[in-house]
Amino acid sequence: MPPVAPRSGDAIFANVERVNAELFTLTYGAIVRQLLTDLEEAEVVNKQLDQMGYNIGIRLIDEFLAKSNVSRCNDFRETTDVIAKVGFKMFLGVTASVTNWDADGTCCSIVLEDNPLVDFVELPDNCQGLYYCNILSGVIRGALDMVSMKTEVTWLRDVLRGDDVFELQVKLLKHVPEEYPYKDDE
Amino acid sequence: MPPVAPRSGDAIFANVERVNAELFTLTYGAIVRQLLTDLEEAEVVNKQLDQMGYNIGIRLIDEFLAKSNVSRCNDFRETTDVIAKVGFKMFLGVTASVTNWDADGTCCSIVLEDNPLVDFVELPDNCQGLYYCNILSGVIRGALDMVSMKTEVTWLRDVLRGDDVFELQVKLLKHVPEEYPYKDDE
Repeated sequence: MPPVAPRSGDAIFANVERVNAELFTLTYGAIVRQLLTDLEEAEVVNKQLDQMGYNIGIRLIDEFLAKSNVSRCNDFRETTDVIAKVGFKMFLGVTASVTNWDADGTCCSIVLEDNPLVDFVELPDNCQGLYYCNILSGVIRGALDMVSMKTEVTWLRDVLRGDDVFELQVKLLKHVPEEYPYKDDE
Repeated sequence: MPPVAPRSGDAIFANVERVNAELFTLTYGAIVRQLLTDLEEAEVVNKQLDQMGYNIGIRLIDEFLAKSNVSRCNDFRETTDVIAKVGFKMFLGVTASVTNWDADGTCCSIVLEDNPLVDFVELPDNCQGLYYCNILSGVIRGALDMVSMKTEVTWLRDVLRGDDVFELQVKLLKHVPEEYPYKDDE
């Protein structure tokens, strides 16, 4: 458990401005449909959704830090715990859990049982290569990037592909120490 | 005021599943940015947003009817009143007002002072032809289509273009009476 006590995701979620989840779900569905029409290849759509998520994540982190009282996580383990327990609750209203840590604490899985993005969604046969929720992996990658953690985020399980839960593997590639006052070229 | 008493938008909004408004705003912004990149022309993006909204509207109407206790509106005047007072509240958490009725009651304006879609949004100079919120006009058109009202929905004022409020003109083109058991070819 994190030594800094963040506000609970429930408490934050109850106090932030919100919109109807079905509107969000249908709007997200409209994006994916649009990208499939414009870009055709599922692989290209996956990449685009990830990039859109990244752009959202680098902005959403500000709202997260402002509202959650989470000031500084000591390590990657604490960070992923906060994402799962506070972040998912605060933004999507659902809770996730963290499992499958590797031995050196740089790779784990975030498991989601409930995911408002996929309500009413079924993938047609010609979209089997699609990671429908790929915007989420981008959001996590973008948000972590802004707190100096370069990560790789990959779907291991996906309910739309027949799995029982959603499982996102988050792998820490590089932790850029914040005390150095330089910026990445990227 | 409508003779059938619908549930208040506030009461419904308090009880539906919701997601964080900032996530929704940023996600919508990501769609618009993506469409501008892919389609380039503001006019084409406007059309696409409207079409995406239409596809959302024809599904959202079900949630609306299921949750709002609004069973049947007697006329166009009552319908627009319900959209403004119940619909906007239920989905976006904001209230709109209806004004500028024409003499025969087939054209009016829905005025929105608060609009979560545009938080943090500024249009760059090369996007001046864009109707950023055009998805909303599509949603209204789609939803009304499903209750047999063919409409034309046009932006008259837009805060992002320097106006003080958002004003959507809704014009009833054709009210297809429901008692005829036929389907439109469209």
